[in-house]
Amino acid sequence: MNIQLLLTGNELMAGDTIDSNSAMIADFLGEKGWRINRKVTLGDDPELLRAEIEDIASRADVLLINGGLGPTVDDLTAQVLAGVNNSELVVNQAALAHLERWCEERGIALNDANRKQALLPAAAEMIANPSGSAVGIRLEHRGCLIMATPGVPSELRAMMRDEVLPLLVERFASDHIQTRRLVVFGLGESSLQHRLSQTFREWPENVELGFRASMPVLEVKLTVRNEAHNGELDEWEARLREVLGHHLLGLAPTSLAKAAIDALNLEQLRVVTAESCTGGQIAAQITAVPGASSVFEGGFVTYSNAMKREMLGVDAETLTRYGAVSEQVATEMAAGALRRSGADIAVAVTGIAGPEGGTEEKPVGTVWLAWGRADDIRTHSLHVPFGREMFQTWVSAMCLDLVRRTALGIGELPRFLERRGRL
Amino acid sequence: MNIQLLLTGNELMAGDTIDSNSAMIADFLGEKGWRINRKVTLGDDPELLRAEIEDIASRADVLLINGGLGPTVDDLTAQVLAGVNNSELVVNQAALAHLERWCEERGIALNDANRKQALLPAAAEMIANPSGSAVGIRLEHRGCLIMATPGVPSELRAMMRDEVLPLLVERFASDHIQTRRLVVFGLGESSLQHRLSQTFREWPENVELGFRASMPVLEVKLTVRNEAHNGELDEWEARLREVLGHHLLGLAPTSLAKAAIDALNLEQLRVVTAESCTGGQIAAQITAVPGASSVFEGGFVTYSNAMKREMLGVDAETLTRYGAVSEQVATEMAAGALRRSGADIAVAVTGIAGPEGGTEEKPVGTVWLAWGRADDIRTHSLHVPFGREMFQTWVSAMCLDLVRRTALGIGELPRFLERRGRL
Repeated sequence: MNIQLLLTGNELMAGDTIDSNSAMIADFLGEKGWRINRKVTLGDDPELLRAEIEDIASRADVLLINGGLGPTVDDLTAQVLAGVNNSELVVNQAALAHLERWCEERGIALNDANRKQALLPAAAEMIANPSGSAVGIRLEHRGCLIMATPGVPSELRAMMRDEVLPLLVERFASDHIQTRRLVVFGLGESSLQHRLSQTFREWPENVELGFRASMPVLEVKLTVRNEAHNGELDEWEARLREVLGHHLLGLAPTSLAKAAIDALNLEQLRVVTAESCTGGQIAAQITAVPGASSVFEGGFVTYSNAMKREMLGVDAETLTRYGAVSEQVATEMAAGALRRSGADIAVAVTGIAGPEGGTEEKPVGTVWLAWGRADDIRTHSLHVPFGREMFQTWVSAMCLDLVRRTALGIGELPRFLERRGRL
Repeated sequence: MNIQLLLTGNELMAGDTIDSNSAMIADFLGEKGWRINRKVTLGDDPELLRAEIEDIASRADVLLINGGLGPTVDDLTAQVLAGVNNSELVVNQAALAHLERWCEERGIALNDANRKQALLPAAAEMIANPSGSAVGIRLEHRGCLIMATPGVPSELRAMMRDEVLPLLVERFASDHIQTRRLVVFGLGESSLQHRLSQTFREWPENVELGFRASMPVLEVKLTVRNEAHNGELDEWEARLREVLGHHLLGLAPTSLAKAAIDALNLEQLRVVTAESCTGGQIAAQITAVPGASSVFEGGFVTYSNAMKREMLGVDAETLTRYGAVSEQVATEMAAGALRRSGADIAVAVTGIAGPEGGTEEKPVGTVWLAWGRADDIRTHSLHVPFGREMFQTWVSAMCLDLVRRTALGIGELPRFLERRGRL
C-alpha cells in the first residue's frame, strides 16, 4: 500500500519545532505491517498545500495530513481541503457538539477561535478527538483516502489508535513488513558493521539490515517483507545477539535506564545516584521509567562543594587536597550515597561539563566515575570533550550502563572505559 | 530563493528516529534571512531518491540532502547522486586523505566500511567534515546547487556553519525574512489568541503572527518579509510583551530553566531543589544550562520515604500522619532543603506520577508544591492527570516557573495554580 504523509506548519519549516509526530504515526502503521512511502513537509501556505495534496492524492492510496487544525489564523487544513474537494466549509454538527462539550467540561465559554474548528468541508466526515478541541477530517479525493489529524502529540496518539488505524485495518490488507530492533550501547556504527562483516561471510537476501545512531545508543534493525521469512528473522536475531554480547540492552522499545531497572529488578537490588556534572540527569532518566520506585532509592545532586560535604559526607580535606574532580572525591561520593541511603549499588560522577571550569591539568571534559557496592567500589577516569550537552548525555549514559552491568555481575570493564571515552 | 530539503533514511520513515536536523538547518538558513520552501523525506530506496532529486532539481535553486553518507550498506546518497549526474563513483583524493587522517587520529585502521566513504561522484566536490568520518558532497545539476551532508547532528552543525552556509551566502542574496519568537509559559494557544483579538482590533498586514505549542511552553512568532517593516517588528513585539506580562519568559532561544537562572542571577540568589515525583528533572533542566553553577546549590531526589527523612529531615510522624503526598511533607521538604544547603530559595514537589500508586483520596496526578524562602514558604496542590511523562514535564515546568517568579518577587499566584492545573 502506498501511504504518504503531509505535515504542515510554518513552525516545522522554520526550525522552531522538531517533528516527533511522524515517528509516532510510523510506529502505529508499522504495528500493522505498513510503512510510510514518502513524507512531505510544507509551511502554512494554502497554494503550496493544495498543489501537494492534489499531487499526492493522484499517486497514493492513503494520505495522512498532520497539523493545521488548531484554533488560530494560521491553521489552514480544513480550508485547503475544502478547496481541493471543490466544496464549502460548513458547520459540522458533530464537530460543534464536540466543541461545546469540550468547553463545558473545562468551564470555559466557546469563543470564536474554537468555533472555527467546527467548520469542515461539506463532503467530509469528522474524526473524533477524545482529548482536545481540534477534530480530525476524513475525505475521499481521486480514489485516495485522506485523513487529517491535529499536531498536538497526545491528541494525535489517541486518534491514531482509536480512529485512524481501525479505519485503515478495515479497508486495507497488511503489507506484512516485520521488523525487530536491537538496542545497543558502547559500539559505534562502523565498528559494529566491521564486526558483522568479519563474523558473517554472507548475509541472507531476505533479511534487511539497518543501523541507526540514536545517540547515545545504536539500534540495529532487521526487517523481512514477507511472512514466509519470519523464521529467518528469529534466526538472525539470535545470531546478532551473540555478536553483540553485553553491549545489547534489549529489544526496542527500551533505553539505558529501562535496561538498568530491569537488571536491578531481576537481582532485587536498589540503586542510589550521586551526581555532580550530570546534575540530576541520571536520576531523571531512571525515574522517567514507570515502576522505577521498586529499584530507585533516591539521588544526590551535589553541584557545589558544600553540598558534597553536607549531603554525602565527602571530607573537606579530600576536596582541598585532590579537587572536586578526582578519584578520591568520586569514591567518597559513592560511599557516602550508599551509607546515607541504604541502597545496594551506587553510581557517582564528578567532572567538568564546561564550557567554563577547565584547567590545564583537568581540561573541560574530564570525568571521574565511581560505582559498585559498599565493599567493592570501582573507579575510572574519562575524557569526554564533546560540549556540555553531549558531555552530559554520554556521561549519564555510561553511568546507567555501569549500573546495569554491576547489577548483572558483569565483571569485565566495558569497552567505552577501556578505550577511555572513545566510543 | 527556493531552497528545498531532502532527508533520507529508513529510520526516518519507520518511526525509529525523530528528525531534529531539519530544524537545525532551518535555524542556520533563518539567520541569513532564508526559509526552507519544502521538505521531502524518503527511505533508503535508490529509485525513489533518484526521481525525487530530479524533480526537486528542476524546480529549486538549492537542494540540501541530509543523511545516507555513513559507512554502512544502507547509505546510498553518493551512489544515487552519481546516477543523477550520469557519472561514476570514484575515489575522491581529498576524501580519502580525510578518512586516513581521521582513522589515524583515533588509532584505528581504515576498514572497508570507512573506505566506501571516500567514493564520490566524479563531477562532485567534497564538503569537509571537521568532526566525523563522512564527508559531504557538492554537485550542480540542472542549474540547482546540490549539497549533501551526513545525518549525525554534531557533524551537520559544524558543516552547516563552516561550509554550507558560507557557500550559500557567497552565491545568493538574502530574502530578508526577519522573525522574533517570544517564549511564553502558562497561557494556552486559544486563550492567547482570544486575548490578542480582544486587545487588538486590527493586526498589521506586514507582520505575520504565528503560534507554536511546544509543550510545555508556547512560542509566539512575529515575521516580516521586507526590511522596510523592521520598525513594525519592534513596535508589535513591545505590544505583545504588554499583553503577555509575567507569562513571557523571554525571546527565543530560551527555556523555563534559562529564564529561572537569569532571574536568580539578576537578584543574586541561589536555589535548591527537593524532588520526589519529578525524580531529578528540575535539577537536570537547571544544570543543562551553561553557567548554572552560579545559582544552583544542588538537589535532593528523595524518592523513598526513608530518603525524605534522612536527606531532608522530614519528620517520620508527618509522613505517617499526612502521607508522603501532602502539604505538610512538601513544606518540610522545602524547609529541609534550605536548611541543609544554605540556598536562598527552594522548590519542593511531592506527588503521584503514576501509572501506579494512586488512591481514591489521592488519585494519580495529585501534586503538592512548596516554594519560597525559609521565612516565606508557600504551598499549593494540583491535579495533573496527564500520564507519567506529561505529568513530569508539566510539574517540572511549573516548578521552574515558580523559581523564576519567586526570584523576581512576583507575588501574585500564576494562572496555572489559580486554575488548579488547567493549562
